[in-house]
Amino acid sequence: MTKETYKKLENYMLDCMKDSAHDKEHVYRVLYVALDIASKEKEVDYDVLVSACLLHDIARQEQNENPKLCHAEVGSEKAYKFLIENDFEKAFAEKVKHCISSHRFRKNNVPESTEAKVLFDADKIDAAGTLGIARTLVYQGAMCEPLYSLTSDGRVSDGTDEEIPSFFQEYKYKLEKIYSRFYTDRGKEIAEERRKTAESFYNNMLREVTSSYDNGIDLLGKIIGKL
Amino acid sequence: MTKETYKKLENYMLDCMKDSAHDKEHVYRVLYVALDIASKEKEVDYDVLVSACLLHDIARQEQNENPKLCHAEVGSEKAYKFLIENDFEKAFAEKVKHCISSHRFRKNNVPESTEAKVLFDADKIDAAGTLGIARTLVYQGAMCEPLYSLTSDGRVSDGTDEEIPSFFQEYKYKLEKIYSRFYTDRGKEIAEERRKTAESFYNNMLREVTSSYDNGIDLLGKIIGKL
Repeated sequence: MTKETYKKLENYMLDCMKDSAHDKEHVYRVLYVALDIASKEKEVDYDVLVSACLLHDIARQEQNENPKLCHAEVGSEKAYKFLIENDFEKAFAEKVKHCISSHRFRKNNVPESTEAKVLFDADKIDAAGTLGIARTLVYQGAMCEPLYSLTSDGRVSDGTDEEIPSFFQEYKYKLEKIYSRFYTDRGKEIAEERRKTAESFYNNMLREVTSSYDNGIDLLGKIIGKL
Repeated sequence: MTKETYKKLENYMLDCMKDSAHDKEHVYRVLYVALDIASKEKEVDYDVLVSACLLHDIARQEQNENPKLCHAEVGSEKAYKFLIENDFEKAFAEKVKHCISSHRFRKNNVPESTEAKVLFDADKIDAAGTLGIARTLVYQGAMCEPLYSLTSDGRVSDGTDEEIPSFFQEYKYKLEKIYSRFYTDRGKEIAEERRKTAESFYNNMLREVTSSYDNGIDLLGKIIGKL
């Protein structure tokens, strides 16, 4: 890929994401991690991979505005259209489209090509480790969701089997479970390296919050009686 | 304090904060940690302390709507008015007012009473450890601020001496520095216990992000040449 082609794709991506600093940061991280994973794979088409990484989230805005839309599906169509209009080969545009459309967990659309598997894994790695924690908290802030829920007696729930959205619920429901779902060896390896940092953040926070509540509720009970 | 009085103050607090789950969680944590700190102090007026903790952030909304207002100052006036209107003694309302007005870092208004020092420390502890990290990220999400900034060559800046708001900048500018600023021994002790969890999150995240960028930029350079 020439530098000019890279810049053209990057500018289109930046244009699609002009309202979101987090989404842009995410795209570069996915691209860089994908290149790391790909360096351990045989026969990677780097033009397809780099294009797919840069464009994989270009329909985030559409999904935010209408949650019924799937950003992977809409983004793959959008990327295909952009590539054809900019004189890329049809076969090339098809390959990029496949990577983008299959980068989410979807039973009826799984990554088949090496490039699609690499993008899938790189995207999931950004939900591992400290970045998974940070992105979840940032999302929670934007959505005004709480850090944790309380049980009926005012104690902190650890998030297990909860229905109400919160950081602890999202950690238990999603973040904790992603480490087994990788296609590539290098993807699995990077995710494993980062698993401990996410686990220790969750465990530390649970301990810090729970101990404050448990101790505080007991002390308050001594002042005003049991609530 | 009777249970009825507690409920009356709590309901007023909840009413003032009805738009913000995070602020409510914070108030309970501050109250519970304050009771822990107070249990190691001599001669604490628990009625003053509990009232001040519950009401210390009731003017957050006013400050959010007009950043020129100080929520500690406005909140202290609001609390005083509420207490007088609800037949609390003037001297009591004055003590609560002092705690609330002096709970921020302000050179011209520092906590003088034991209760004010306890509230100040309990409030600062919520900016220590994992909670300081989580609350900063949630705020960043609500404000659409990025996790980190990039240097001119596209590498990740660690936040030191930066002007642009980001999570790394806030960590270096504020979170990292709070551990020396406590009035009570127990406050200092709790903060110290939590210092390591915040430090390790920042260090882990910096390592995970920096290694992805450094490695990725080198690999990308091999494909498209130096950007």
